[in-house]
Amino acid sequence: MLTMQDALLALQRYWTDRGCMIVQPFNTEVGAGTMNPATILRVLGPEPWHVAYVEPSVRPDDSRYGENPNRLQTHTQFQVILKPDPGNPVEVYLGSLEALGIDIRAHDVRFVEDNWAAPALGAWGLGWEVWLDGLEITQFTYFQQAGGRSVEPVSVEITYGIERILMALQNVGHFKDIAYADGITYGEVFGQSEYEMSRYYLDDADVSINQELFEAYATEARRMLDARLPVPAHDYVLKCSHTFNVLDARGAISTTERARAFGRMRALAREVSALWAERREELGYPLGVVAPPEPAVRPELPTVTGPRTVLFEIGLEELPPHEVTQQIAAVRTAVTEKLAATRLAHGAVTVDGTPRRIAVLVADVADREPDAEKTMRGPKLAAAYDADGKPTKAAQGFARGRGVPVEALERIEVGGVEHVGVTVPEPGRPAAEVLSDLFAAVVTELRADKNMRWRDGKLSFTRPIRWLTALYGETAVPVAVSSLLSGRTTRIRRTAETPVVDVPSAESYVDLLASHGITLGEADRRAAIVARAGELATAAGGVLDVDGEAAVIAEVTNLVEEPNPLVGSFDPKYLELPPQILTTVMRKHQRYLPVRDADGTLLPHFVAVANGPIDTDAVRAGNEAVLRARYEDAAFFWRADLKIAPVDMKAGLAKLTFADKLGSMADRAERIAATATDLARLVDLADAERSTVDRAGALAKFDLASSMVIELSSLAGTMAREYAKRAGETDAVATALYEMELPRGGGGDVPTTVPGALLALADRLDLLTGLSAVGEKATGSSDPFGLRRAAVGVVTILRAFPQLAPITLTAGLRAAAAHAAVDVTDEVLADLHEFLVRRYEQQLTDAGHDHHHIDAVLPLADAPAHADATLAELGKLAHDDDFVDLAQALARVRRIVPAGTPAAYDPTALVEPAEQALHRATAAVAVDLPEHPTLATFVPVAGALTTPINTFFDDVLVMAEDPNLRASRLGLLATIRDLAAPLLDWSAL
Amino acid sequence: MLTMQDALLALQRYWTDRGCMIVQPFNTEVGAGTMNPATILRVLGPEPWHVAYVEPSVRPDDSRYGENPNRLQTHTQFQVILKPDPGNPVEVYLGSLEALGIDIRAHDVRFVEDNWAAPALGAWGLGWEVWLDGLEITQFTYFQQAGGRSVEPVSVEITYGIERILMALQNVGHFKDIAYADGITYGEVFGQSEYEMSRYYLDDADVSINQELFEAYATEARRMLDARLPVPAHDYVLKCSHTFNVLDARGAISTTERARAFGRMRALAREVSALWAERREELGYPLGVVAPPEPAVRPELPTVTGPRTVLFEIGLEELPPHEVTQQIAAVRTAVTEKLAATRLAHGAVTVDGTPRRIAVLVADVADREPDAEKTMRGPKLAAAYDADGKPTKAAQGFARGRGVPVEALERIEVGGVEHVGVTVPEPGRPAAEVLSDLFAAVVTELRADKNMRWRDGKLSFTRPIRWLTALYGETAVPVAVSSLLSGRTTRIRRTAETPVVDVPSAESYVDLLASHGITLGEADRRAAIVARAGELATAAGGVLDVDGEAAVIAEVTNLVEEPNPLVGSFDPKYLELPPQILTTVMRKHQRYLPVRDADGTLLPHFVAVANGPIDTDAVRAGNEAVLRARYEDAAFFWRADLKIAPVDMKAGLAKLTFADKLGSMADRAERIAATATDLARLVDLADAERSTVDRAGALAKFDLASSMVIELSSLAGTMAREYAKRAGETDAVATALYEMELPRGGGGDVPTTVPGALLALADRLDLLTGLSAVGEKATGSSDPFGLRRAAVGVVTILRAFPQLAPITLTAGLRAAAAHAAVDVTDEVLADLHEFLVRRYEQQLTDAGHDHHHIDAVLPLADAPAHADATLAELGKLAHDDDFVDLAQALARVRRIVPAGTPAAYDPTALVEPAEQALHRATAAVAVDLPEHPTLATFVPVAGALTTPINTFFDDVLVMAEDPNLRASRLGLLATIRDLAAPLLDWSAL
Repeated sequence: MLTMQDALLALQRYWTDRGCMIVQPFNTEVGAGTMNPATILRVLGPEPWHVAYVEPSVRPDDSRYGENPNRLQTHTQFQVILKPDPGNPVEVYLGSLEALGIDIRAHDVRFVEDNWAAPALGAWGLGWEVWLDGLEITQFTYFQQAGGRSVEPVSVEITYGIERILMALQNVGHFKDIAYADGITYGEVFGQSEYEMSRYYLDDADVSINQELFEAYATEARRMLDARLPVPAHDYVLKCSHTFNVLDARGAISTTERARAFGRMRALAREVSALWAERREELGYPLGVVAPPEPAVRPELPTVTGPRTVLFEIGLEELPPHEVTQQIAAVRTAVTEKLAATRLAHGAVTVDGTPRRIAVLVADVADREPDAEKTMRGPKLAAAYDADGKPTKAAQGFARGRGVPVEALERIEVGGVEHVGVTVPEPGRPAAEVLSDLFAAVVTELRADKNMRWRDGKLSFTRPIRWLTALYGETAVPVAVSSLLSGRTTRIRRTAETPVVDVPSAESYVDLLASHGITLGEADRRAAIVARAGELATAAGGVLDVDGEAAVIAEVTNLVEEPNPLVGSFDPKYLELPPQILTTVMRKHQRYLPVRDADGTLLPHFVAVANGPIDTDAVRAGNEAVLRARYEDAAFFWRADLKIAPVDMKAGLAKLTFADKLGSMADRAERIAATATDLARLVDLADAERSTVDRAGALAKFDLASSMVIELSSLAGTMAREYAKRAGETDAVATALYEMELPRGGGGDVPTTVPGALLALADRLDLLTGLSAVGEKATGSSDPFGLRRAAVGVVTILRAFPQLAPITLTAGLRAAAAHAAVDVTDEVLADLHEFLVRRYEQQLTDAGHDHHHIDAVLPLADAPAHADATLAELGKLAHDDDFVDLAQALARVRRIVPAGTPAAYDPTALVEPAEQALHRATAAVAVDLPEHPTLATFVPVAGALTTPINTFFDDVLVMAEDPNLRASRLGLLATIRDLAAPLLDWSAL
Repeated sequence: MLTMQDALLALQRYWTDRGCMIVQPFNTEVGAGTMNPATILRVLGPEPWHVAYVEPSVRPDDSRYGENPNRLQTHTQFQVILKPDPGNPVEVYLGSLEALGIDIRAHDVRFVEDNWAAPALGAWGLGWEVWLDGLEITQFTYFQQAGGRSVEPVSVEITYGIERILMALQNVGHFKDIAYADGITYGEVFGQSEYEMSRYYLDDADVSINQELFEAYATEARRMLDARLPVPAHDYVLKCSHTFNVLDARGAISTTERARAFGRMRALAREVSALWAERREELGYPLGVVAPPEPAVRPELPTVTGPRTVLFEIGLEELPPHEVTQQIAAVRTAVTEKLAATRLAHGAVTVDGTPRRIAVLVADVADREPDAEKTMRGPKLAAAYDADGKPTKAAQGFARGRGVPVEALERIEVGGVEHVGVTVPEPGRPAAEVLSDLFAAVVTELRADKNMRWRDGKLSFTRPIRWLTALYGETAVPVAVSSLLSGRTTRIRRTAETPVVDVPSAESYVDLLASHGITLGEADRRAAIVARAGELATAAGGVLDVDGEAAVIAEVTNLVEEPNPLVGSFDPKYLELPPQILTTVMRKHQRYLPVRDADGTLLPHFVAVANGPIDTDAVRAGNEAVLRARYEDAAFFWRADLKIAPVDMKAGLAKLTFADKLGSMADRAERIAATATDLARLVDLADAERSTVDRAGALAKFDLASSMVIELSSLAGTMAREYAKRAGETDAVATALYEMELPRGGGGDVPTTVPGALLALADRLDLLTGLSAVGEKATGSSDPFGLRRAAVGVVTILRAFPQLAPITLTAGLRAAAAHAAVDVTDEVLADLHEFLVRRYEQQLTDAGHDHHHIDAVLPLADAPAHADATLAELGKLAHDDDFVDLAQALARVRRIVPAGTPAAYDPTALVEPAEQALHRATAAVAVDLPEHPTLATFVPVAGALTTPINTFFDDVLVMAEDPNLRASRLGLLATIRDLAAPLLDWSAL
């Protein structure tokens, strides 16, 4: 059996043989091999660097006293940096798995999008998690930035998770059982240290001493930067980072402290990087400078005879699944538009793809463009010849510019005006030339949501483009882009006997791929997966919820080229866990499809979709082991949590800091409860609802202290519901606890019950008032505390619950402010109110409402449900002539009445019939209007004013010279204004 | 070429194949691989542990900005722990050198005593430096204690110095030029870090922040101990230690701070160890328990026929050289005495040895003891039989105890008294039995200056005993001791084709060894070395100073079994350096013999003594490279120092802290100068001497700030002389600066000039008064500040300079106290005075003086030279009858006069002739005595008192009843007492 020690030596040997230096782990605690200066500093600048090393990586937060089978405070990374990107790093990496004795032909090795970012280091990159039978064994990243600086050349970073790999290879279920070396297990070597360091990180580290250490380290880092010594400065940044992690694991970091500490570390890290880069330059780049890749030179183009089918294949490393779909569409558009801009005759344009290729097929492409002519316009005829009919200088210049004798100028008419002009022939270009240029442009212009650079240097795309294939029928058409030159081969499965194969012709391409197992069509793969997965589910005695799992199916469709669904099982004992937990793990972590019985109840099976031909039993076993480990984790938390009554669990909130000056999560939960109770007083509630609010308030947020939620934070609320139910709380209380976390994000579910809605409102209003009062703000680019999301939540809930109309934004904010931990000024409340209204406005805009209508109802936004109702009525009335007339009349009233004009007048002062009529109509309407009119009830009544208003404006001069008269007229109009004002802003319409 | 990376992988592979785990370097800065918990904690307790790892070891003090070719702030250790000792660790280790591609047959691999101790870890062990052609490449230690706890079983610790090994293997002169991996040098990988971390450690680390860090770490360590978590506690002890080293490298640690910090770290380390050991026991020793080795079982003894020669060889791992000599003598004594206690007839006993064996040869040993009888004494005859002549119970009991019938008792006479007794036969034992028991006892009783344990467990000796050989003629005689059982083989050179060979007979043993190149006789080896080295020196055009190099010759004689001297050369350019530097390096560091010309001037050659057959050219080249590196270092410092004028260099003393509250070394130098000037005022000096004192005082200690002395502290004073001369100071000043550091230790050279003596006194008096005033004391077991050595120095110098008599201990201490940085109380001065007197007394005792004489002159010890003179006179007079009589008379006077009796009397009150005669004699002596009598001038004059005193005591009753008379008589005697008192304490004689 390969021991862990053997594995580490094998990797060292493998990478040594591939030109890597081996260096030692860093002698300061690091959270990952990336933080070792051999990575984070060396990826900067133009010098080459090939290195590999073991890095015991310390994550205080992962401390579990050695009890959790998969989680360690110190785990072992094996880190590789290849700078520059060798061009085939994925293939080289696969070789290292073979060096570990992994049969990559039998196993399912997949590259699953995972983009890495370390904000504290100002670093990010794009890449993948590498999965071995569903187990994440490696992080593979193209480093794009470090210390806030773009890196050039790009480094490939490969980070192996050694314990995971060994657990899989040795088929053990607990890290302690890994054979570390002959005759000694991992647990025997490291067990005591795991326990004791966990104790330190979780329970025993002194908070104030660690705070002092953080300050001391930050100060030294600062001083070393000033002394222009990036190496010791970096060392101290690492010490800062570790100390921060210790404090965090101890629960001693509030949200605001976190943001501040991160900001400080990020700033230091950026300076370290800048200084390192400067120093290397000053030292003259001792390791030399990586030469940029040679630009590809396009050879002579072939002459082709057609029409024939054209193939253009863009060969890629694994695209993120959603980009497969997007890029197929984008390339289709680009090729279609660009072809349209040529004169090349062609048939249908087909574009399809897989994670590793986007392929363009154009049918019946002519072998050249037809010849054509082009006429160019010169000066106006009048300016082209003088009185003697001789060409002017303008005409001469024009002719010279076009390379024709002045005598060759013709008369042409443009827009009815005569000009001189010239017609030149435009010979058609050969197809090879047109296509070569066109495809080169398509590649150059490829862009994705997130783009990266690689060895190529000039191109930028979501993942590296590694090859191009271009054929006109059988003939290769050279396409040169940056350092890439197209050929006539394509690449199939990397583990195939011959991974690179010749494409005989464009016409045979799709079949060629199929003969190697690759399904080019996205829809075809999806259909194949759905069909086969369905069969497997049926065979397992269940069904697949194809619609419900559409997102996962879409994802796996684009994670594979050769879909190979397989069914796996898990121990039915895990079905005791709430299904949300099981499906969250399956979908989110593993991209498995759950299998259910006819009632929708989960069965202990799943469908995984492997790629290519594999040893199904081995891959099934691997996937089952991964799921078992994850479920074991979850079950461990579940059982641990169930031992604690919600009310006792809630006591744990006192240990979780919420934010600076705003106390603990326990304080926050108390405020939420008090605020919810106050909000409940504003509305009519059944007694049962009221007591649900009280009880749920008393338990608010208790599950944040549960192991499960600490582990899987997305289950907050969900777990509260489960634990509450099992602890004997009523369904109503359990539901309210669940719903208080809704909506989780834009567009998510909202509460369905009033108690849930009240608690959810209280939750968000507390967050908004508290954080705003201590000065936190959401900005365009940054909203670390989720203020924007909270505001959206408030608005969304209020819109969903018209019955809560008495809880206006103002009332809600005031209720929360009354319980806030700090003083909330009127100014803060005003700003928050505005912030909430803007969110509402944004929602209306996003929903496509007419902006006049939005502006019209915004004054009502303090009660968003009411504003919604008005908006809806407005929508219905928008084409109603009576309404339009009334609205115009009222808008006219509004425009003429100066702001501040009181709505009072002396009717006896009115002299003209029109104004007397209006007075009477107004008085009648005032009497007829219901107390709280809506637009629907207002318009029929107030419609009686339309004609009198219009007549008034026709007959009466409002601005009479007699001040009394004028005041009365304005008072009358102001009265009408005020009658209409509560309904909407008429002038906006 | 083997790169450094290859070497590390080769070692990992080699030790993996020998059952070691490979672990990672520790993720906190450590000064050595030993401090990694994989060593320092795992060597504790009974669990087995086999581990190997790379450890980048941080020594801030070794920071040289990457400029020094051999010194790095971080160097790479490869550490191996074998627990338990496998029994042949040296042989296994040699295999690892072969794994590194070292031809151990061609090279000179030697094991040079080097005992390791890490006071801060409470750890020590015995072992060697391993030399490869004179280069220290490995530290090899049998771990004896860790954390102040004895370790059982003992671990073997092997620590390779990787950079040194690689520099030798790759034949490069600067660490930066090591090929680290293919195409990249060590300097390219680590150069910038070396420079920057050196900057931090030497120049830029913030002292107060690091002090804070030290406190914080110590506090956390303390807390974790209280929480019973030894792992994090150890981590923090390591952090303490590193921070301490940083402060030390910054020159921010005073002597007292050092002692305190060390004490604190040691105490913490001890607690960590104790707690770790406890915790492992509580955990039930998860790795199991090492079984103690099986005791050897002695098989049936052979019957032999003689007389024949007997051989007993004790086979060892390399003894320290001085122990070879000591142990040969000790074994000779033991065997001789033990044989004498048997009746075994034998001829000459010869014992000789090498570092790897002590061999006993006994000629003509009979094959058995002759039979004999033994008479045992019983009760006295009178008690043996009752009145009836019947045996008493006593007699019966005696007979029963001896196993004979009571009738068998005989009458025997013992000392003229008749007893009953019994004679029993004592049959002679066979030779094999006698010898087997005897040799076993010899081995069991072996003891050296420093003893250790190894795998054996029960035996204890200076190095492991690995085999025993015992032969009676051709016959093997089994000797069983603990787990060792003797055989008939011996071991020759480890690198021989057959390293274990049969010994055909005791008689052929010496020749057998010789046939394998081994010279058993110590004297023979010495003679061979002297002869061959002399030849080599002559061939090199020089001579060897055999007497002057006696110590080195004695050492190398016992570093080899097969002496193989070779001559090497060094670049003559290094002869520009002072010869003391060159010879210090040769002798102390390399055990080379310097080659000089007829005038004693150094030539650029040296003789090294290799062991066994080697490739002379390769070994010469290796040794030359080592010396070159060392001289290059020294020359680097020499040149650097010469650029700085002494007075400027002295300014550097301000940065060297002396001790807490006692300021910097600059402050101390100033105090020394002032004290020396004051001392000079007490004595008659020529003007030139006085100005020498002033000038040398102004420069006092300046060389402590020189690079050379910082590097080679034993050259303090020596370098001051050299640098001062070259800076144009007078010879007298240069000499005084040199002499102020004398004597360096007990028995070393003392100053020869008065200015040197005055400065040396001032130096030591300042140390004593200052440190005593701040509460430091030398105790029996500990004298961290060298107070005892300083006191010895003061006394030694004053004894050597009688002309400085006015500088009494009292005057000297007061002079120093007057300039002290802190208040020096009278009590401190009194204690110090006593401390100095005790040192003087010790010197006299050690010199073998009669303790009566010592007591007699001790009252004069305030002026030790004067006391010496008196003691010398006392020695001469001791057998002079007149003196003896006088002394007895004066002692009689002293005894009778009560303390406090005034030396005054009324002569007219005296009535008896004897007392009147004594009065007259006393008055005459008082007149005749010189002003400051010495014993030599006192005795002839005072001798006149002997008879009158004796007559007085014969005739006169001192204690007369008349009080007046009694007072006069006592006054007369007190007058005599006081006359004699200044000379010595007469009552002590």
